Amino acid sequence: MKKIIKNGTIVTAADTYKADILVEDGKIALIGQDLSDSAAEVVDAQGHYVFPGAIDPHTHLEMPFGGTVSKDDFETGTIAAAHGGTTTVIDFCLTDKGKPLQNSIDQWHAKSHDKSVIDYSFHLMIGEINEDVLEQLPSVIEDEGITSFKVFMAYKNVFQADDGTLFRTLEEAKKLGALVMVHAENGDVIDHLVTKALEAGQTDPIYHALTRPPEVEGEATNRAAELTGLADSQLYVVHVTCEEAVTAIANARKKGYKVIGETCPQYLVLDQSYLEKPNFEGAKYVWSPPLREKHHQEVLWNALKTGDLQTLGSDQCSFDFKGQKDLGKGDFTKIPNGGPIIEDRVSILFSEGVKKGRLSLNEFVNITSTKIAKTFGLFPQKGTISVGADADIVIFDPNVERTISVETSHMAADYNPFEGMKVTGQPVSVLSRGDYVIKDKEFVGKIGSGQYLKRSRFGELTTSQEELYQK
Amino acid sequence: MKKIIKNGTIVTAADTYKADILVEDGKIALIGQDLSDSAAEVVDAQGHYVFPGAIDPHTHLEMPFGGTVSKDDFETGTIAAAHGGTTTVIDFCLTDKGKPLQNSIDQWHAKSHDKSVIDYSFHLMIGEINEDVLEQLPSVIEDEGITSFKVFMAYKNVFQADDGTLFRTLEEAKKLGALVMVHAENGDVIDHLVTKALEAGQTDPIYHALTRPPEVEGEATNRAAELTGLADSQLYVVHVTCEEAVTAIANARKKGYKVIGETCPQYLVLDQSYLEKPNFEGAKYVWSPPLREKHHQEVLWNALKTGDLQTLGSDQCSFDFKGQKDLGKGDFTKIPNGGPIIEDRVSILFSEGVKKGRLSLNEFVNITSTKIAKTFGLFPQKGTISVGADADIVIFDPNVERTISVETSHMAADYNPFEGMKVTGQPVSVLSRGDYVIKDKEFVGKIGSGQYLKRSRFGELTTSQEELYQK
Amino acid sequence: MKKIIKNGTIVTAADTYKADILVEDGKIALIGQDLSDSAAEVVDAQGHYVFPGAIDPHTHLEMPFGGTVSKDDFETGTIAAAHGGTTTVIDFCLTDKGKPLQNSIDQWHAKSHDKSVIDYSFHLMIGEINEDVLEQLPSVIEDEGITSFKVFMAYKNVFQADDGTLFRTLEEAKKLGALVMVHAENGDVIDHLVTKALEAGQTDPIYHALTRPPEVEGEATNRAAELTGLADSQLYVVHVTCEEAVTAIANARKKGYKVIGETCPQYLVLDQSYLEKPNFEGAKYVWSPPLREKHHQEVLWNALKTGDLQTLGSDQCSFDFKGQKDLGKGDFTKIPNGGPIIEDRVSILFSEGVKKGRLSLNEFVNITSTKIAKTFGLFPQKGTISVGADADIVIFDPNVERTISVETSHMAADYNPFEGMKVTGQPVSVLSRGDYVIKDKEFVGKIGSGQYLKRSRFGELTTSQEELYQK
Amino acid sequence: MKKIIKNGTIVTAADTYKADILVEDGKIALIGQDLSDSAAEVVDAQGHYVFPGAIDPHTHLEMPFGGTVSKDDFETGTIAAAHGGTTTVIDFCLTDKGKPLQNSIDQWHAKSHDKSVIDYSFHLMIGEINEDVLEQLPSVIEDEGITSFKVFMAYKNVFQADDGTLFRTLEEAKKLGALVMVHAENGDVIDHLVTKALEAGQTDPIYHALTRPPEVEGEATNRAAELTGLADSQLYVVHVTCEEAVTAIANARKKGYKVIGETCPQYLVLDQSYLEKPNFEGAKYVWSPPLREKHHQEVLWNALKTGDLQTLGSDQCSFDFKGQKDLGKGDFTKIPNGGPIIEDRVSILFSEGVKKGRLSLNEFVNITSTKIAKTFGLFPQKGTISVGADADIVIFDPNVERTISVETSHMAADYNPFEGMKVTGQPVSVLSRGDYVIKDKEFVGKIGSGQYLKRSRFGELTTSQEELYQK
Repeated sequence: MKKIIKNGTIVTAADTYKADILVEDGKIALIGQDLSDSAAEVVDAQGHYVFPGAIDPHTHLEMPFGGTVSKDDFETGTIAAAHGGTTTVIDFCLTDKGKPLQNSIDQWHAKSHDKSVIDYSFHLMIGEINEDVLEQLPSVIEDEGITSFKVFMAYKNVFQADDGTLFRTLEEAKKLGALVMVHAENGDVIDHLVTKALEAGQTDPIYHALTRPPEVEGEATNRAAELTGLADSQLYVVHVTCEEAVTAIANARKKGYKVIGETCPQYLVLDQSYLEKPNFEGAKYVWSPPLREKHHQEVLWNALKTGDLQTLGSDQCSFDFKGQKDLGKGDFTKIPNGGPIIEDRVSILFSEGVKKGRLSLNEFVNITSTKIAKTFGLFPQKGTISVGADADIVIFDPNVERTISVETSHMAADYNPFEGMKVTGQPVSVLSRGDYVIKDKEFVGKIGSGQYLKRSRFGELTTSQEELYQK
Repeated sequence: MKKIIKNGTIVTAADTYKADILVEDGKIALIGQDLSDSAAEVVDAQGHYVFPGAIDPHTHLEMPFGGTVSKDDFETGTIAAAHGGTTTVIDFCLTDKGKPLQNSIDQWHAKSHDKSVIDYSFHLMIGEINEDVLEQLPSVIEDEGITSFKVFMAYKNVFQADDGTLFRTLEEAKKLGALVMVHAENGDVIDHLVTKALEAGQTDPIYHALTRPPEVEGEATNRAAELTGLADSQLYVVHVTCEEAVTAIANARKKGYKVIGETCPQYLVLDQSYLEKPNFEGAKYVWSPPLREKHHQEVLWNALKTGDLQTLGSDQCSFDFKGQKDLGKGDFTKIPNGGPIIEDRVSILFSEGVKKGRLSLNEFVNITSTKIAKTFGLFPQKGTISVGADADIVIFDPNVERTISVETSHMAADYNPFEGMKVTGQPVSVLSRGDYVIKDKEFVGKIGSGQYLKRSRFGELTTSQEELYQK
Repeated sequence: MKKIIKNGTIVTAADTYKADILVEDGKIALIGQDLSDSAAEVVDAQGHYVFPGAIDPHTHLEMPFGGTVSKDDFETGTIAAAHGGTTTVIDFCLTDKGKPLQNSIDQWHAKSHDKSVIDYSFHLMIGEINEDVLEQLPSVIEDEGITSFKVFMAYKNVFQADDGTLFRTLEEAKKLGALVMVHAENGDVIDHLVTKALEAGQTDPIYHALTRPPEVEGEATNRAAELTGLADSQLYVVHVTCEEAVTAIANARKKGYKVIGETCPQYLVLDQSYLEKPNFEGAKYVWSPPLREKHHQEVLWNALKTGDLQTLGSDQCSFDFKGQKDLGKGDFTKIPNGGPIIEDRVSILFSEGVKKGRLSLNEFVNITSTKIAKTFGLFPQKGTISVGADADIVIFDPNVERTISVETSHMAADYNPFEGMKVTGQPVSVLSRGDYVIKDKEFVGKIGSGQYLKRSRFGELTTSQEELYQK
Repeated sequence: MKKIIKNGTIVTAADTYKADILVEDGKIALIGQDLSDSAAEVVDAQGHYVFPGAIDPHTHLEMPFGGTVSKDDFETGTIAAAHGGTTTVIDFCLTDKGKPLQNSIDQWHAKSHDKSVIDYSFHLMIGEINEDVLEQLPSVIEDEGITSFKVFMAYKNVFQADDGTLFRTLEEAKKLGALVMVHAENGDVIDHLVTKALEAGQTDPIYHALTRPPEVEGEATNRAAELTGLADSQLYVVHVTCEEAVTAIANARKKGYKVIGETCPQYLVLDQSYLEKPNFEGAKYVWSPPLREKHHQEVLWNALKTGDLQTLGSDQCSFDFKGQKDLGKGDFTKIPNGGPIIEDRVSILFSEGVKKGRLSLNEFVNITSTKIAKTFGLFPQKGTISVGADADIVIFDPNVERTISVETSHMAADYNPFEGMKVTGQPVSVLSRGDYVIKDKEFVGKIGSGQYLKRSRFGELTTSQEELYQK
C-alpha cells in the first residue's frame, strides 16, 4: 500500500528540507512538495524530522558468551532497535576454529530468520587463516553477501587471533573487496594484568577497567592501522573509546591509510567511575574496551566532528544484572561483557550531539546511517532518503523530552545503563520497506518480517561510483 | 516554464541514484522515477550525471591589481564559469583603508549587476579594524548579506593586515556570526626575501616561488589557526598549497578549533617546475602562494579525502600573457598574480579526483558545491539537489574526453595554464534557477540575469538546524 | 694563591667522581686523588658536591622598565647570584631605535664595571634592522664579543620588532656566527586583549595572565622556529612556559632546525593561581610570559629531561612590592614585570629536579652551567670543571634543608616569590677564578672584581671542535 | 707501570681540553697540564684526541645462527674492536626455553674467558617468562651482574617472544632494576611476507629487505614503547633503522616514557640498494632489520643530535661471504643475518658525524661511550676520562685518512661491508686498564686479558647519584 509522509523536514547526510515523500512498493517513489494521492495513506510528519532509518553496524544478539547467552535475541533486539529508530542491524556471526564457516552462518540464519522485525545482515568473525579458510571466503562473499570480517586482538585463548592472521585477513580482504573489522586491545597484556589483579584479590568490577588501560587499546589500534597501510587494505576499528586510539587512527589517515573508526554511545556519555558503583552495580557498565576517564569524551566527540571517527555502533550485547552480570561477583572476569544499548543509540547522539551543538543534523544522519550503509555495502538501498531507496524511514520528534529507563525500555535486560538520563528527541513512527514497524511509538510490526541483506563489496565505494549506479 | 530532467543519475553530497527532476518556477519541485508532465520541456540526461551547480567561493573578477585589472569581468568570467559547471560565484570585494565599506560594495555591485550570467555574492576584505569599521560591519551583514570577511597576512604595504586586525576580525566575526577568511603567508618575510632576490638580480618568474617558500605559508596558517582557537571563532584558509599548511590545519582541528581549508586545482596538478618555463612563460604560473614541489600534491589530495581540506576554489584572477603578465619581464614582482581557472576547476577535480579513484562522486559534489554552500550561508538554496532548492543544475557527461586549451576556453585571457591537459568529463548543459545558461555546450544565457545573493550567518550551520529549516 | 679543594665529589655535565682539585692562577691546574701542596690553602669539600659555577644566561640588572628601574643592580644582583652558586651572568643590554648600539653597550659597561662581583657578559637587543644597524653588528661581535642578539615579538610599541626584523636578524646571525634569542609572544594580540580587559574594568593582577594565554606563546614560538629553519639560522627561545611552546620547539628540532629552549624556575614550581593572591599580592608573580596552569609544569620538566628544553635562566628582574609592583594597583599593565630569582635558581633545580629524581646530577650541571657556556660561547673557559678552565667552582651541600625567604635572601627586593618553599641543598662556598666570593655562606668577595667576558661565535660549537681547542 | 699521556686533547661527553693524564694501577690517577713522573712511560698524544675507550653495547661473537656460527669469536672480535677504539663489549647471551639461564651464561663465560683482549659483559636473552624463570632472575643480577634482558619481537618460532612475555619482562625489570632491550619488528607479519615471497620465487637478497618493511619496525617499536609506559619500566630499542621507529620513540619520550634508542653505523651510511648488488653480493648487506631507503639516514642522524636516539652499537655478527652468507643462495631466508662492523663503528661516526659537522666531539663521545656506560651500569668505571675511572683510553688521530677494506681489517670475515669507504680519523693507540692493547696501530695485547664486568642496576642512574658516588 502506498503512503505519503507529509509536512516533515527531510534530513539526509547532505540535505535538510521540507517536502513530502511518496512510498510505493516498499520504496521511495517520489519526493516533492504538497504531494497527494488518494490511494495513499497519509503519515503526518508535521513538526517532525524525517530521517533515513538508522543502521546499527555492531550487535551481538542471542550470542553465547562466557557460559551464558546475551539476553536480547533477534526478536526483542530488533523490536527495541526499531523503537529507537534503527531499521537495519548487522550482527556478528561467531565462528569456531576448524569448523566450516557456513555452519556458523547457518546457525546465525537460524536464530534470526523467524524473529527479526527489521532487515539484517552479518559480519563474519575470522579466528584463523589457513588454506581451508581461504577457500571458503569467496563463497561467503558471493553467496552470502558477507563482505566484512572481524578479527579480535583481545580475548586471549577465546577469540584472539595473532598478527599473522590479522595481516593475512587484511591481504585477503583487499583481494576480495571485503572490509576488516578489528577489536583493538592487546590481549596478551590484558591477560597478564587480569591474572595479577585476581592474584591480588582485586575482584571488583572496577578492575575490569583497570586491567584494560587505554595504552593497550592505543597500541593495538596503531598496530592494526600500520598493518592495514602495509597491506594497502581497509580497516574498520570497532568501539573506539580513548584519545590514544583516536590519535592512532588520525595518524594513519594522515598517511593515506584507509582506516575508519566507530565509537559507541556509552563511551560518549558514561565514564569509568560508573564501574565503582556500590552493590556490584558497576557490573552493569562492563564493556570491552571499558569506559574511560571523562576527558576522553570530548576527544571522541571532536573526532566524530573531524571525521577521524565516522560511525556509531551500539555493541549491543545485553545481559540481566540478576542471573547474568552477577556471575561475576567475586571475580570480575566472569561478568559477561556488554549491555543493552541498541534502543537508545540514536536518541543519545541526537540529544547530546545535535541538540548540544556538537554535530549538525546532516552529520548525525551520516554517522548513524549513511556512512554505515556506504561502508558496509548497503548503500543506496539503505542509509538515505532518495528516490529508489528502501523506504526505511523514521519520523522523529526533535522536541519531546524523555528519561531513559528500564521501565520504558523494550530491551529484554533487567536494567538500562543510561537509567535516569534525560534526552530530547524520539522516534514517533518507523517504517521498514514502507511498512510500519513502529506507529505512534507502539510496535506494530510482524515478527520475522525482516529480510536478510546481502551486501556489496567494500572497494566499490572508494572508486567512482559511475558503473555502480548507472546499471 | 517547467522542465523535466530525465534519466540522469542524480548525485549529491550524500546520494547517487537514478531519478527524474521536475523543475518549476526556478526551483526543484519534484524528484521521482519516470516523471512526466506535458507542459514540461524534457532535458535528456541519459548516461549523464545530474549534479548541483558548482559554487566557486574564490574569484577576483575585473579586479585592479598592480596597475592593471584582471581580464575576466563578471560577464566573461561567469560565462566561462557556467561552461565549467559553476552556477554561483562569490567574489572578493576589496576595500580601501579609511573609506566607507559601502563604497566598495557599491563598486562591486556596479561591475557585476548588469553582467553576471549566474548568481553571485561577495566576500569583504578587512584591511584594518577600528571603531569606524566596527560600526559598519553589522549593516554589511544585515543589509548586504555579506557574512565572510577576508584578511590578508601577506602583500605588505598593500593588503596586509597585522595580527591585531586579524584577531579582532576573528572576535568580531564570532560575535556577528561571520566567517573569517585568511590569505596565510608571512608578508614581512616575503617582502624581505623579495628585496634580497631583486638586489641579487634574481628577476625571473621562478623567484616568485623561491621567495615565498612553504615555511611562510605553514607558519602563517598555524598563526591564524591559533588565533582562531583563542578567539573561539571560525576560520577559512583560502588556497592551501602545501604539507606545512595542511599540518597546521589538521593540528588545529584535532584541538577542536573551527578551521576549514580550501585548495585550488592548480595546486593539485601543477608544480613549481612550471615557473621555470623558458621565454618568460613561467609568468603564466604565478600565483600567491606559488605552485609547490610535486610531493605536496598527494598531501593535498589526501587532505581533501580526510576532511582536513574541505573545499575547492579557483582563485580566478586572469591576466593576458601579452600585455599583462609581461609587465613583470625583468622583475617578477611586477607579474600580476593569478590565472584563468574558473572554467576548468570542476572538470579537473572530476577527472583527477573521481576518475582516478581519489574521491567518491559524493565527495566531489561536496567539495565543489555543497560544503561551500553550507560554509558560506547559501544552503539549502544553493549547493544541492533537493526539493525546494534553486534549480542550479549541471548535466554532466562523465565519459567525454577533451584536452584543455585556450583555443576552446571561454575565459578572456590569452592562455590557459592547463593547456594540453587531458580531462575526462564535461558539463553538457547547465541550468541557473531552471533556465538554461549552457545548452549542449553552448552559452544560451542572458547577460545580467544573475542575481545577487545575500547570505546567512556562519554560526547557523554549526548548531542544530532545526529552527532554520522548519520555518 | 693556590687552593686545593679536597674530598669533594666533582660533578660535571658528564662525570661524577671523587677527586681533589688544585687551583692555581685562577685556573683549574690539576685533578687527582689525595692532592697535596704545602703552598695551597685547603678547601674542605668532604660530603659536598663540587660543581662548576652556574651561569645565568638571562638577567635584567638595574634595567629601566615602565618608568622604574629593576631593583637589583650589578652589585646586589651578582652578590645574590654568587650566594646561589652562580658565577657568571649574561645581562640583556637594551638598545634604542636610531641610536648607536655602542652607546647602549657603553651604558651597560658603565653600570656593571665597578659593581659586579662575578664575571659577566651582555646580550644585545635588536629592535630594528636597517643598513645602519647592519654596519654596526660586526664590531659588536668582534670588539665587544657580544654574540647573541635578542628580538622581542611582544611589548608592542616598546620593544616589539616585526617579523621582517626577526628574520633579517636570523639571517645576519647566521652570517656572523651569532645566536638569536627571542621573547616569543604575539604582542599584537596581547595588546588587544589587554585593551579589552582594561575597558571591561579587569584590572587585577590575574588579568595579566589571562591576557597572555599559552596560545600566543605557542604561536610565536612556532613562528620564530619556522623562520629559523627557513633562514637555516640558530634560535634560543627564552623563558618557555607552556606545552604549546615546547611542542613548537620539539617539532622544529625534529625537522632538524637549530632551536634551543630555556625555561625558568618560576615556571617549574609556581602556577597561575599565585596571581590571584589577595591584597594585590598577585603582583609579586607577574612575569611575561605569565605563570601557567599547573599541568604545564610536568611538560617543562620532561622537556628538560628529553632535551627539547636545554637551559635554565632566571629572567632576574626584581622590583619591590611596595613602591614598584604597586604602581600597578588598579591597572595590571602598570605592574613592573619580573621578580627576584637569581639567587634561588640553582637550588630549586637541584631540590626539585635532582632530589626528586627528575634529573640526574649531570643533567643538572648541564642545564645550569655547561650547556649555557657552550651555547653562548663561554666554553670551555666557563661551564665545567676541567683542567685549564677558570676556577669558577661551587662547593655544594646536598643535604642541608632550608626555607626560602626574603628574610635570608641577598637580593634587594622586599619579597621573595618562593617565600616559604623548602629546598634541599645549598652552596657553601663559591670561587670565582680561584678566589672566594662566598665562604661558608658569607659574601667575602670584592665589589667590582667581576670581569667582562667577550664570547665566541655560536657556529663554532656546532661543527667539529678540533680547530677550536687544539689551538 | 705508570704512564703519562702527554699533550693530547682530552675529550669527554662534556669537555674538550688540553691536558696530560697520569695512569697508575690501571686507573686514571691525575689530570693536569705538563705532568711529569720519571717512573712513568710517556705516551705522546700531540695532535691527537684522547677519548675514553668506546663501548660496544651490541655484539654477537661466536654466536650460533641458522646452522652456522658467527665468524668472529671473542679473540678476533675483541682484537678488531680494540683496533677500532672499543675497549668494552657487551655480548648477547642467548638462552634456551626450558633450560636454566645459568647454563647459557656459563657457556658464554666459557667462550669469552680465555679469549677476550678487552673487558666485556653480557646481556641475557629472555625467551619466555614463567615462575621458573622469575626465580632465576635475581641471581642473574646479583651474582652475574647482568642487568639487561633482551626480548625479541621477531624471528618467529626461533627467538620471538609474545607480548605477554615482553610485558612481564618489563614489569620484572622495573622491580629488579634491570633494563629491557628489544628487537622491534613484527615477526608474525614478517613470517607471512617471507612465506609469500618464497612461494612467488622471490629468493634474492633484496627480498630480505622487502619482506621486513619499515612499517613492521615502526609498529613494533610503538608497541614496545607503549607497554613500557604502561609498566612504568625502562626500554632500550636496539638497532633503530627508520623514521617510523624514531617517531615512535620520540612520541614515547614526549609522554615521559623511559625509552632509549640505539642505531648502528650501517643504517647511517648504507642503504637498501646495496642488497641489489649482483652476483649474490647483496647477501653481504643482510641485517635484521634491513638497510632502508636513503632518506631514512638523515632522520637517524638528526635523532642522534636531538637525543631521540642516544647510542651507537655495531650489532657485530660476522659471517664469511663464501661458506656462510652463500648458504642463502636461492633462498634469502638462509642467509645468516649480520656483518663485521665492530672495528669500524667508531671511525664511521667520527668521520661522518664529527667531521661532517653533524655531531660535536662531545656528542660523539657520549654516543659511542659515556651514554652506553651510564645506560648499562658501567659508569663511572667505564665510559669517561675522569680521575678514578679505568684507564681505558684511545689516542685518536683525527686527520689521518684511510679507506676501509677487508685487506686491512682485523675482523675474521672475508669481506667488509664498508669496503672502499674513505674515512678520516683512526685510533693510534688503545689502553685497557692502563695497558696497551693497540700501540701504533698494532695489536700488542694479551689474549684472555679482558675481564668480565658485573654491571650496576639501571635505576641507579635515573635518580640522584649522590648516594652512589659518595661511597
